[in-house]
Amino acid sequence: MKRIHTGIKGLDNLIEGGIPEGWGVLLTGPTGTGKTTLAIQYLYNGYKDYNEPGVYISLEEDVQDILKVMSTFNWDLNTLQREKKLVMINAIPKKSPDATEYVIKAPLFSQTFSFESICSLLEEKINEINATRVVIDGLSALALLYQDDFKIRQGLLDMTNTIRSSGCTTIYTTEIPEGSVGISRFGVEEFITHGVIILYYVREGGKRTRAIEIRKMRGTRHDQSLHPYEIAEKGIDVFSEEIAFLRDNLL
Amino acid sequence: MKRIHTGIKGLDNLIEGGIPEGWGVLLTGPTGTGKTTLAIQYLYNGYKDYNEPGVYISLEEDVQDILKVMSTFNWDLNTLQREKKLVMINAIPKKSPDATEYVIKAPLFSQTFSFESICSLLEEKINEINATRVVIDGLSALALLYQDDFKIRQGLLDMTNTIRSSGCTTIYTTEIPEGSVGISRFGVEEFITHGVIILYYVREGGKRTRAIEIRKMRGTRHDQSLHPYEIAEKGIDVFSEEIAFLRDNLL
Amino acid sequence: MKRIHTGIKGLDNLIEGGIPEGWGVLLTGPTGTGKTTLAIQYLYNGYKDYNEPGVYISLEEDVQDILKVMSTFNWDLNTLQREKKLVMINAIPKKSPDATEYVIKAPLFSQTFSFESICSLLEEKINEINATRVVIDGLSALALLYQDDFKIRQGLLDMTNTIRSSGCTTIYTTEIPEGSVGISRFGVEEFITHGVIILYYVREGGKRTRAIEIRKMRGTRHDQSLHPYEIAEKGIDVFSEEIAFLRDNLL
Amino acid sequence: MKRIHTGIKGLDNLIEGGIPEGWGVLLTGPTGTGKTTLAIQYLYNGYKDYNEPGVYISLEEDVQDILKVMSTFNWDLNTLQREKKLVMINAIPKKSPDATEYVIKAPLFSQTFSFESICSLLEEKINEINATRVVIDGLSALALLYQDDFKIRQGLLDMTNTIRSSGCTTIYTTEIPEGSVGISRFGVEEFITHGVIILYYVREGGKRTRAIEIRKMRGTRHDQSLHPYEIAEKGIDVFSEEIAFLRDNLL
Amino acid sequence: MKRIHTGIKGLDNLIEGGIPEGWGVLLTGPTGTGKTTLAIQYLYNGYKDYNEPGVYISLEEDVQDILKVMSTFNWDLNTLQREKKLVMINAIPKKSPDATEYVIKAPLFSQTFSFESICSLLEEKINEINATRVVIDGLSALALLYQDDFKIRQGLLDMTNTIRSSGCTTIYTTEIPEGSVGISRFGVEEFITHGVIILYYVREGGKRTRAIEIRKMRGTRHDQSLHPYEIAEKGIDVFSEEIAFLRDNLL
Amino acid sequence: MKRIHTGIKGLDNLIEGGIPEGWGVLLTGPTGTGKTTLAIQYLYNGYKDYNEPGVYISLEEDVQDILKVMSTFNWDLNTLQREKKLVMINAIPKKSPDATEYVIKAPLFSQTFSFESICSLLEEKINEINATRVVIDGLSALALLYQDDFKIRQGLLDMTNTIRSSGCTTIYTTEIPEGSVGISRFGVEEFITHGVIILYYVREGGKRTRAIEIRKMRGTRHDQSLHPYEIAEKGIDVFSEEIAFLRDNLL
Repeated sequence: MKRIHTGIKGLDNLIEGGIPEGWGVLLTGPTGTGKTTLAIQYLYNGYKDYNEPGVYISLEEDVQDILKVMSTFNWDLNTLQREKKLVMINAIPKKSPDATEYVIKAPLFSQTFSFESICSLLEEKINEINATRVVIDGLSALALLYQDDFKIRQGLLDMTNTIRSSGCTTIYTTEIPEGSVGISRFGVEEFITHGVIILYYVREGGKRTRAIEIRKMRGTRHDQSLHPYEIAEKGIDVFSEEIAFLRDNLL
Repeated sequence: MKRIHTGIKGLDNLIEGGIPEGWGVLLTGPTGTGKTTLAIQYLYNGYKDYNEPGVYISLEEDVQDILKVMSTFNWDLNTLQREKKLVMINAIPKKSPDATEYVIKAPLFSQTFSFESICSLLEEKINEINATRVVIDGLSALALLYQDDFKIRQGLLDMTNTIRSSGCTTIYTTEIPEGSVGISRFGVEEFITHGVIILYYVREGGKRTRAIEIRKMRGTRHDQSLHPYEIAEKGIDVFSEEIAFLRDNLL
Repeated sequence: MKRIHTGIKGLDNLIEGGIPEGWGVLLTGPTGTGKTTLAIQYLYNGYKDYNEPGVYISLEEDVQDILKVMSTFNWDLNTLQREKKLVMINAIPKKSPDATEYVIKAPLFSQTFSFESICSLLEEKINEINATRVVIDGLSALALLYQDDFKIRQGLLDMTNTIRSSGCTTIYTTEIPEGSVGISRFGVEEFITHGVIILYYVREGGKRTRAIEIRKMRGTRHDQSLHPYEIAEKGIDVFSEEIAFLRDNLL
Repeated sequence: MKRIHTGIKGLDNLIEGGIPEGWGVLLTGPTGTGKTTLAIQYLYNGYKDYNEPGVYISLEEDVQDILKVMSTFNWDLNTLQREKKLVMINAIPKKSPDATEYVIKAPLFSQTFSFESICSLLEEKINEINATRVVIDGLSALALLYQDDFKIRQGLLDMTNTIRSSGCTTIYTTEIPEGSVGISRFGVEEFITHGVIILYYVREGGKRTRAIEIRKMRGTRHDQSLHPYEIAEKGIDVFSEEIAFLRDNLL
Repeated sequence: MKRIHTGIKGLDNLIEGGIPEGWGVLLTGPTGTGKTTLAIQYLYNGYKDYNEPGVYISLEEDVQDILKVMSTFNWDLNTLQREKKLVMINAIPKKSPDATEYVIKAPLFSQTFSFESICSLLEEKINEINATRVVIDGLSALALLYQDDFKIRQGLLDMTNTIRSSGCTTIYTTEIPEGSVGISRFGVEEFITHGVIILYYVREGGKRTRAIEIRKMRGTRHDQSLHPYEIAEKGIDVFSEEIAFLRDNLL
Repeated sequence: MKRIHTGIKGLDNLIEGGIPEGWGVLLTGPTGTGKTTLAIQYLYNGYKDYNEPGVYISLEEDVQDILKVMSTFNWDLNTLQREKKLVMINAIPKKSPDATEYVIKAPLFSQTFSFESICSLLEEKINEINATRVVIDGLSALALLYQDDFKIRQGLLDMTNTIRSSGCTTIYTTEIPEGSVGISRFGVEEFITHGVIILYYVREGGKRTRAIEIRKMRGTRHDQSLHPYEIAEKGIDVFSEEIAFLRDNLL
């Protein structure tokens, strides 16, 4: 089974070297755990270390803000974009020009388009730069577009079906509401993906601890423990040799 | 009472040698516990060790992905399929060609058909290869087809009624959402099956433990403890001589 | 107050010798606790030890399956049926012939009938064999027939009113969903019955413990402790002299 | 403030000798705690010890069944009824003759009447026997008549308004569903009554303990502890000198 | 900041001498904690000790019953009413004369009026007696008038807006349902008031403990501990020098 | 990354000196934790220490009341307003003049306007005084304007989009209902803001403890502990050198 290296050494150690090619992986955890950072690091390392181009779609946060944050890690994403090794799409929900409905707006492409058309844009960009890595960042934002959980579930199904057929290895990020013990927001994310990675940020007494866990990875005899990680100067570091001891009942 | 051996020795030990013939058994647990692996191992062993053909329907995950994962155990499922000892049906929900509704699509049979017609396909295939074992993998996917729990319950009832009348011994898999303490997703699975097997994947401190339990098995003086299991190189191994000690309140 | 002996010695010990004549008793507990076994044992002992005929209606599980399971206890229910000392009615919900609605179907009587008509069938059979004992097995199945809890409550009320007027002493079984701390599924069962018996199957560490409790029995200074029981070779054995110590908070 | 003695000595000790005249008191607790027994004992003692006639309405259980149960305490309620010192009304919900709606049926008065008319029947009977004590037994049954909690709340309000204006001192019983920590079923009972008495039946390890608590009693410097009680041969005995120690978190 | 003394010495100690003039304060706690007693004591002391007249509106309990209870503290509220230093309005929900809807009925003023008109009555009475203190007793009763939480929230908003513009210092009482950990019933009470005072009545083992806490008081460096209080012979006594130790997790 | 100093020294210490320019920060916590005080202190220090004007909008509490409370800290907000360094807008929901709907009313600007028009007023005022700091105080009040959570989420999205494009650094306050473990009321606040600051007010035994935590701050290697804070004579003091130890499970 061919594996796509995340380029985050401590993380690759936990999953037999990388994510199996073509898999979709859910990256989940509460707010402020560095989901976007990890996901973009996966794309940045992908080109820098393995020469594999990638496509990034943000459903939640403005790409300009993300670029500002990522510059603190000294990742030169603008150059990558200019060299057509990375495409970053700003697909956050905005009111349509006539202010009657909410649509996805991707300003970098001077274009207003519906959520359904994201998939075709995605295919187009993947082909354009021969991408093999994809990140869909912020599934939780779908709650702003659709009132009905059932519609969201079907939208997720469509999206993952489209992406699977592209052959790309994909990370989906989603936010777990604080105080929830589940790993998905809409109840189906975990079963339309081949892997689940959880980021924890748990308070014990007066301090927060960060930990990462491989919860599922099809076709992989993956690690079964929780490990500390840091959001350090050059991005995320996973300490695969150390165990993170969290109390048993997290609420 | 005639018993159908799962061929997983540690598991057969817990249930007087096997599942009573004709029974439907619910195999349940959270994501990443190896439900699909155990279910396919039941079919693979069924032919390899007991010469009993089987039919497998996936409602959730692409059969091509499953074949890729199972190849890591060196189970040659393709040969079994060619020799008509195993039929694997890809019945995952897809948008219908005119994009107006969701239907079950089984590409291997170049055919789009509704959920209701799965039952007739199933009967046809059982007869064609004289199958005595059936696996219905991923009942949770029904949430993608039907918005209404009541309809799902009745769909489940229809399906189990159809399969019972075929005389096959059947494993149904379903996913328990993380953080739930129930054993069924739609509230009726446990009472339309003759047996319930639970897979646990419980975090204690910084580590996950896997355990299996026979929660119910009609007509069987079954084991009443939890036992460790591993997803090892050649499939699932159940350690029926060891007890798995899990903390009392799992949330 | 005349008492109807269950014929399960350890159980009769807990309730001043038996259930007061004419009472309706709710037998409840999670899946796999032997509710059906205890209920049929009540009917079997009723004839074998006290010469009292009984009527059994299954709302949930096929009577043929139940007969197969009960044969493992060496209870010859077929003979009892032939001698008109026991009537077993298969009243499980099936799609109606024209496939448009769900109805109760009782194949032994070659007849499709609605839930409402169960009561008249019941009266007819009670009179036919002079039954004094009744079992209604599987109230939870009502969730498959009615979408509306309010309708289910009223259906339950009608049914218990009908049965009370027959003078028979009746056991109703219902399943408590795993992880629930209530004793009824639809919120009214406990107040339309004169008694409540609970079966527990509680995991402590790596082992399950079975226990029985008399939760309510009108007109009876009943036992107030939990007692171990076994599903043994000849049916259920209650150890009324021993106390079962379960942890305080069962979830 | 004039007080109406319950005649249960241990209970009167906890509330400065009795319930203030004209108050409505909610008697609540899970199934099998003896609510009906305590309520009828209040009426029985009322006549036997204080020569005060009473009216009893059962909304839940057949009066014939109740009489059978009460006979085990050797309370001759039939004589009291004959002497017009006690009126017992069977007002349990039944299907109306034309089977289209549910109504309250009071067979002793050969009459089918709506819930609304209970109040006028009550007034009539209070006047007829000069009753000063009333028991309304089984408010939970209202869930069988009305689908809508809002309607139930308003029905409760009407009923308590009617009864207050009669000047009678009244006990209302209601059942707390198992596993609930509230004291009312419909969310308003506690604030339309002047007092609340709770009956507990708590499992600790393998044994149940009975306890009674005065939770509220307007105009009364009532006891603030939990006390053991027994359902003994001559009715309920409250041990007002002893404290019942229950674990802190009852679920 | 001018402060309005409650006249309950222990309480005034906790809030820099009194409630800031013009504030609205939510007084909350479960049933039987003496909310009405504390609120009326605030009005009674207001006139007796500070010569400040007050208006009281009961939304929940009959004013005649309240007068009876308050007489046990020897507070001569009737004289105060005669001397026009106190107005007590009985505004409890009753069926309208034509029995088709529920309205607020204030019998002392021989008048049926809608909830909306309470505000104008209130203004009228405040002006008539130059009141500077107001009590609105029993917000929970609004659940009997309106089926829709959204309407209740808006009604609360209207009421507090009206009262604020009168300049009076106001106590609102509301009941917390048993077993709730929130401090408001409709989800908005705490943010339309300037202060929140909580009354606790917590069971520990076999005994109940009373405690009071200042949860919020705008513009006041208020006490941050829980203190015991008693409902004694002359009303409520707060022991501001003592700390009440309650277990951490109250459910 | 340019940082906007809050001027609260202990707080700036926790976030590398200040909030990154242009960010929106959610300030959340239960009632009575000083959210309004902290937010206005941010504006007051902004002008006093850094000469940066600010705009404040209250959605919840009357600005006159807020001015009264803030005067206890000796912050002369009236002078700042006169000098056009601070604009305070009273945008609390009131009934519209024809009493048929609820609208936002901003009396200082003698104008009734809809929630949608707040954004344009905001833009106008920002330009008028060249504001670089904004506070939106009391998002929870949106529950009074909209019945539908979905509409509230979209309203929040519009508002944050408008404010982001102004370039101002903004604090949004919202109330967490008592007993909730989440950090947002409408389920989306945390993902439309770049930072989250939590204020705690936790009871342990008989005393409350105040603590502050930086839960998220994009582009910032922020502190990961809880720290005590006080609402002192001159406003909020954060003790960044001390750790606040709170019990692990706060409910």
